[in-house]
Amino acid sequence: MQTNHTFRLQHKIHFSRCDPAGIIFYPQYFILFNDLVESWIDAILPGGYQGLIGERRVGMPTVHIESEFRAISRFGEQVWLELEVARLGNRSITLAWRCVGMDDVVRMSAVQTIVTTSLETHTSIAIPEDLRAALERAAPASG
Amino acid sequence: MQTNHTFRLQHKIHFSRCDPAGIIFYPQYFILFNDLVESWIDAILPGGYQGLIGERRVGMPTVHIESEFRAISRFGEQVWLELEVARLGNRSITLAWRCVGMDDVVRMSAVQTIVTTSLETHTSIAIPEDLRAALERAAPASG
Amino acid sequence: MQTNHTFRLQHKIHFSRCDPAGIIFYPQYFILFNDLVESWIDAILPGGYQGLIGERRVGMPTVHIESEFRAISRFGEQVWLELEVARLGNRSITLAWRCVGMDDVVRMSAVQTIVTTSLETHTSIAIPEDLRAALERAAPASG
Amino acid sequence: MQTNHTFRLQHKIHFSRCDPAGIIFYPQYFILFNDLVESWIDAILPGGYQGLIGERRVGMPTVHIESEFRAISRFGEQVWLELEVARLGNRSITLAWRCVGMDDVVRMSAVQTIVTTSLETHTSIAIPEDLRAALERAAPASG
Repeated sequence: MQTNHTFRLQHKIHFSRCDPAGIIFYPQYFILFNDLVESWIDAILPGGYQGLIGERRVGMPTVHIESEFRAISRFGEQVWLELEVARLGNRSITLAWRCVGMDDVVRMSAVQTIVTTSLETHTSIAIPEDLRAALERAAPASG
Repeated sequence: MQTNHTFRLQHKIHFSRCDPAGIIFYPQYFILFNDLVESWIDAILPGGYQGLIGERRVGMPTVHIESEFRAISRFGEQVWLELEVARLGNRSITLAWRCVGMDDVVRMSAVQTIVTTSLETHTSIAIPEDLRAALERAAPASG
Repeated sequence: MQTNHTFRLQHKIHFSRCDPAGIIFYPQYFILFNDLVESWIDAILPGGYQGLIGERRVGMPTVHIESEFRAISRFGEQVWLELEVARLGNRSITLAWRCVGMDDVVRMSAVQTIVTTSLETHTSIAIPEDLRAALERAAPASG
Repeated sequence: MQTNHTFRLQHKIHFSRCDPAGIIFYPQYFILFNDLVESWIDAILPGGYQGLIGERRVGMPTVHIESEFRAISRFGEQVWLELEVARLGNRSITLAWRCVGMDDVVRMSAVQTIVTTSLETHTSIAIPEDLRAALERAAPASG
C-alpha cells in the first residue's frame, strides 16, 4: 500500500535486464532495488549513499531478504519501484519493497533487513545519528 | 547439512561479482545459484536446462525466495555452492541452497520455490514427467 | 563533440555498477550504452525498441566495437551518456558514444557498429524503412 | 590461432548471460574475459589476481578495446575462451582474446590493452617485476 512515506521511482524494464523468456531475470530486481535504496538515501541524507559508503566507510549489507514474485514484468514495460521503512532497529533497518505495474498489479514484493557495519572491520555498528534522524523523518510514526 | 542428495560445485568469487566494499554484491548470489540450478538440471535431465527452457519452452520462474546472509564472501575466495530438493509439489519445486566457505562457515543460505510454466502463456503447468522422475531420483526419500 | 544531433541522458554511477576499486566496472559501460540506445530508439521510433525487437523480431546485434577509456568514473558521480549516428549503411548503423563527466572530461568513447537481423534466422536484413527514416531524421546531413 | 602460449578455458553459456533473443548479451563477453584474465593471472602469478589487486593495490584497468562479433553464441552452448599476450610494454599489456565454438567457428575476438596503476592514486605505474616475469614466461618470444 502506497502511503505518504513511500519513496518511489518509475522505471522501464530494459532489454539488458531480460532473459531468454523475454521477461526480467529475477536477480535483476535485487539490483534495481539496490539502486532504489541508493537514490532514496541520496534524497534523504546530505552527502548521500556515496558519502556514507565511500567516504564514511559505513557498510549497509543485507542480512535477510524474503521476496514473492507474483506476476511477470516484461521487456519494455514501465513499472513503479517503491520502498518504505518497515522497522528501524538500533543496528538494522527493515525495508518493504514493491514493484507495481502501470496496471496496479504487484509484480514482486520483498522485505529486506539491512545492518550498518564498519567497512574496515565488516562488523555491526549502531546506525549513524544523522542517518537515523533521516530515516525517522522518512518512516511512518509507528515505524 | 550436506547429504548424499546434495549437488555442489566449487566456485571462486571473481572480481566481476564484487562491489566497492571488496565483497560479493549480494544479488550476484542469485545469479550464481541460477547457474548452479542450470548445471544441476544439466546433470540430472537428458537434454538439460537448455533443452527444457529453450526447446521445450518450459519456464522455471522463481515465485518465492527467502535468504539469510550470515558472513561475507570476499573477492578471490573459494566457496562451495550447494543445493538440495527440499520439497517437490505437483507444480512447484522447493530448493534449499547454501554457500559455504572452505572454512565450513555458511556464508548464505536460501529456500527458493520455483514453479513450472509454459513459456508460451506464462501460466503454471504440472512438472513434466521426465523432470519429476529426475528430481525424485535426486531428492531424499522424505522429500 | 556535442551537436544538435546528439542524444544524451544524465546518469548517476550506482554502487551496483562499481568494482572493488570503487570505480565503474568497464563492461558496465556497454550495458549503460545498450540502455541508452534503447531509450534513443524509444524516443525516435513509434513502438520503440521493444516494438522493434520484441514484436517485429528485428535484432540489432553489435558486430564491431572500439572503445577508449580515458578517465575513471567513480561510484556516486553524475555523468552524461551521449550518442550520435556516425554512419548509416543499408544493413548497418554506426554509432559514436561518449561518457562525459560534469567537469567535461571525457571518460570513455566508443564507435559501435550494429547490424539489423531477423531474430528468426539471425541473418542480416535491410534496415526497416521506418527505422531508416527515423535514423535519417536523427543523423547529421552528412551522416 | 591457438599456440602453446594460449591460455584457455571451456565455458558454458548460461541462461543468466542471455538476452530475449536467446543468445549471449554482448557485454557479458567482457565480463567472461575479465574472469578469464583473473583465472590466467591466478595460474601464472603467486598470490594471484586477488593478491595483486586486493592486497598489493595494483589496478589493471582497460584503456582500449576493439572487438569483432562474427557469430552468435547461444544459450546452452559450450565454447572455448582463449587469450594470449599480444604485446608487453613498460606500463601496458595487450591481450588478444577469442571465443570459439566446439565447431571451431570464432564467435568473437578482441584486442584489449590494460595498464597497470596504483589503486591509491589511479595513476599509471610500471608493471611490477614479478608480474612482468610471469607475463614474459607466458608470452611468445616475439611478444
